[in-house]
Amino acid sequence: MRESLLKTPERLREVWVGSSRDGARAKEIARLGAEKGVPVHFKALREIQAIMPGAAHQGFVALAETFFSYTDIEDLIEKSRQERGGALLIVADHITDEGNLGALIRTAAFFGVHGLILPKDRSAKVTGKLLKRSSGAYVSLLISQVVNLGRTLDLLADKGFWIIGAAGEAQESLYHFDWDRDLVLVLGSESKGLSHSVRERCHAMVKIPGSGQVESLNLSVAGGVILSEIVRQRGSKGG
Amino acid sequence: MRESLLKTPERLREVWVGSSRDGARAKEIARLGAEKGVPVHFKALREIQAIMPGAAHQGFVALAETFFSYTDIEDLIEKSRQERGGALLIVADHITDEGNLGALIRTAAFFGVHGLILPKDRSAKVTGKLLKRSSGAYVSLLISQVVNLGRTLDLLADKGFWIIGAAGEAQESLYHFDWDRDLVLVLGSESKGLSHSVRERCHAMVKIPGSGQVESLNLSVAGGVILSEIVRQRGSKGG
Repeated sequence: MRESLLKTPERLREVWVGSSRDGARAKEIARLGAEKGVPVHFKALREIQAIMPGAAHQGFVALAETFFSYTDIEDLIEKSRQERGGALLIVADHITDEGNLGALIRTAAFFGVHGLILPKDRSAKVTGKLLKRSSGAYVSLLISQVVNLGRTLDLLADKGFWIIGAAGEAQESLYHFDWDRDLVLVLGSESKGLSHSVRERCHAMVKIPGSGQVESLNLSVAGGVILSEIVRQRGSKGG
Repeated sequence: MRESLLKTPERLREVWVGSSRDGARAKEIARLGAEKGVPVHFKALREIQAIMPGAAHQGFVALAETFFSYTDIEDLIEKSRQERGGALLIVADHITDEGNLGALIRTAAFFGVHGLILPKDRSAKVTGKLLKRSSGAYVSLLISQVVNLGRTLDLLADKGFWIIGAAGEAQESLYHFDWDRDLVLVLGSESKGLSHSVRERCHAMVKIPGSGQVESLNLSVAGGVILSEIVRQRGSKGG
């Protein structure tokens, strides 16, 4: 507990101290909490025991910021295929900005995407801070990290998924594409677009038609617009 | 020029000094520019004269950050009614966060919205910094500032506009609403939603149906999703 407060206070949401603990250790925890910006709550011991029966807490409990772990890619694929109305996955191709990734996660969770696939390199990592900013979206969205995005897309194609890339220079409008199939939507970064190894694996590329007055949309806005159209089309078919 | 550099350097993009000016004043301008973080470029006088013929610049030119001015609300309404395919305006109801307003402006410009209406109070202001962050969107989007949002909505209703509010708790799905009419889309803040005086003036309220796993969308994502559906519907009717 003392170690966590000293070394990784950013991972702690709050700390509980059982009210029977009024010795030197309780005071030190309270002082460290104040110093590191982690709220310390004094609770009756029996209250803590009621919430965490049987836990060996000795009157001290540290609540972690967020409980998150990456999902195995095979599990993520299997689970998405069990969903009614067709699987819907997103690949975020080298989104290095944390804010953009967090906003995309939130948007994806809102529209009920089944899973998000991130490359291990050249991508923002999913941290507690990021998930906090995406408004609890992590609860409902499975996220996998893969070493080789190209190979993962090959695997998905083998399993019958359609790989659809979004790009401003594409010919086909998202409104004219038939989204009612097991699919992986691939989104790239605003500045660099889709990487070559990803692009060559796409079965189709779609664009969001704009007025032409502004070149592109923010990543999460573009994602939201496409996901909305997918949900609309699937819904109108009674899915 | 000296005054601008001293008092409002944030409004200056850069400063030009004609190269024939090598006296004390030119040096002071160069020093102030360095101090305030405004780039100072030394240019041939005839180059400045070629770019700004007839301007009384005396060899010193300050380039403003962005050229922006609010549009009169009556002008904005008139211009929007001259557009083909029906007028499309947005009211941003008390969006106080600059980042959110900037992202909304960019999204609105992308989808070819004809004008944005902001209340004078309890709203972020449109500044050069904000417009810079919205990727040049200001070029194509007229923006009006009004003292009384309720009265402006009354005026718009009198002129035949439909006032449509977006709210998570609305019954009607945006996909089932017929957007093919002169309309004002009213968006509120994520935390507070639409204010009472605005809500009571809406002819209809629509929601974006989500999976229920995350409660709401970011303002610009919600705006983008609704604007995309408007564009889709109008386009499919050959507008």
